Amino acid sequence: MTSASDGTQNLSTHALIGILTVSDRASRGDYEDRGGPGIRGYLERVLASDWTAQVELVPDEQPEVEQAIRSLAAAGCCLILTTGGTGPALRDVTPEATAAACSKMLPGFGEAMRTASLKAVPTAILSRQTAGICEGALVINLPGQPKAIAECLDAVFAAVPYCIDLIGGPYISTNAEHIVAFRPASAVRPDLEVSTNAG
Amino acid sequence: MTSASDGTQNLSTHALIGILTVSDRASRGDYEDRGGPGIRGYLERVLASDWTAQVELVPDEQPEVEQAIRSLAAAGCCLILTTGGTGPALRDVTPEATAAACSKMLPGFGEAMRTASLKAVPTAILSRQTAGICEGALVINLPGQPKAIAECLDAVFAAVPYCIDLIGGPYISTNAEHIVAFRPASAVRPDLEVSTNAG
Amino acid sequence: MTSASDGTQNLSTHALIGILTVSDRASRGDYEDRGGPGIRGYLERVLASDWTAQVELVPDEQPEVEQAIRSLAAAGCCLILTTGGTGPALRDVTPEATAAACSKMLPGFGEAMRTASLKAVPTAILSRQTAGICEGALVINLPGQPKAIAECLDAVFAAVPYCIDLIGGPYISTNAEHIVAFRPASAVRPDLEVSTNAG
Repeated sequence: MTSASDGTQNLSTHALIGILTVSDRASRGDYEDRGGPGIRGYLERVLASDWTAQVELVPDEQPEVEQAIRSLAAAGCCLILTTGGTGPALRDVTPEATAAACSKMLPGFGEAMRTASLKAVPTAILSRQTAGICEGALVINLPGQPKAIAECLDAVFAAVPYCIDLIGGPYISTNAEHIVAFRPASAVRPDLEVSTNAG
Repeated sequence: MTSASDGTQNLSTHALIGILTVSDRASRGDYEDRGGPGIRGYLERVLASDWTAQVELVPDEQPEVEQAIRSLAAAGCCLILTTGGTGPALRDVTPEATAAACSKMLPGFGEAMRTASLKAVPTAILSRQTAGICEGALVINLPGQPKAIAECLDAVFAAVPYCIDLIGGPYISTNAEHIVAFRPASAVRPDLEVSTNAG
Repeated sequence: MTSASDGTQNLSTHALIGILTVSDRASRGDYEDRGGPGIRGYLERVLASDWTAQVELVPDEQPEVEQAIRSLAAAGCCLILTTGGTGPALRDVTPEATAAACSKMLPGFGEAMRTASLKAVPTAILSRQTAGICEGALVINLPGQPKAIAECLDAVFAAVPYCIDLIGGPYISTNAEHIVAFRPASAVRPDLEVSTNAG
């Protein structure tokens, strides 16, 4: 079950991960992007296997967001995390751009992230975050605030490595003190697991 | 953060609210509409700031429902609450009409309302209620029964005033004994809040 | 309220139920279909009223899955249960085929099934299961594993008989020791209920 749907297996454990900030103000330089660094900090804590970030910053324009997602997927990203642009306001178009770039949608991610955020604030229902598959990449929309980003990723990250297995990406390991990644027994590859027991 | 996405602020506190009953039988006069008055009664209990209702009644025909939503939004409604037409039956088309009228959808409302209704009846999963933005209006689908209407609005109304802020509408205050509206600290406007402490 | 939306009532209590396995490997004969028999076993335990199964097996090709759903609905099925093809992998297209075959979608089913599956495994959010109405049939996507099939059906089956009432299908009764079907008081038909109290 670690095989992708075409029957091939990806034995790599190195992940290229796209971090896409969607913000008019950050892209104009009106203020510093905090969402992108928030995502990077989360991944640094949580991932045990090797990874490299590819970072992009675009304004809240649907064609630019869609194109950025497609470019990151074409560059070989197995995971693309967006931050910003998921609210109800006129300029918030990240979910529409995500749906346009993706060939299939994963509604369970949005449901789980809103359920988690609802424990913090009742306005969590205003988030239109979604997730989907663009070529070989799992795309997940995240909020703009680093604290909310961590809440949302904590709610879904246990499922991310196996999802990446299923779409033919590298075998990702997590630091178990932060996130225990779940794979069916048949999908666990001890030879590819990066141990995180430091002693 | 009380500013709409175009940077303007709406300093009004008066809300025009559309109440749209969707029912073949009520529109033919076969029986009296109970959903519309149920919504009005709820708003009378919950809203502390000024508001006016604009009431419409249409049959379960998708083009008529869609047109009624668009007309209420064009008339300046910041909130449009529909009742009826959200089930699985052939004539139930309110969610499709809502999606057709709206430029963006807010799936978190339907999720939260179904989760709340599930505590009352297992058939809550049959409701296809959704929400979205049509021009400057937040549109929310509600069930037909006054009791179910109140259950659903109780589940989401804390997020409604801030959503209306974000789409450029008036600053709405609620009676805190019924609903405590949530806004981020930066979005609270004490000068616009209507106090509801009577003693 | 047992009447369908066109005002007619279906006084039949015999249900034709489609069981559709979607699997490249089972359709090639690479392994034995376990999902279809899992669904049949569940229905044998749970249904008290008469029913007949119509079984189909197709590969993970969207046009074939869509056509199979349409054919089962045209054959008079009031309920079509699919198994397989709901994950994020390239070949998983059952939700897209379901949406293409259905005139209206019921997002509450997918939400409730994912919420139930999440109690077992965090990767439940990867399931893209949905439900909808195709002509006179309620179509529900289920996972591939018999254990997961039962978990998902347990989460939604109490709402299935009333949904079938609402779309004009036969009056279905369940074995109350397994599933207590819920209908509003006005929709209960004691004359059509099949008693399941054996002693």
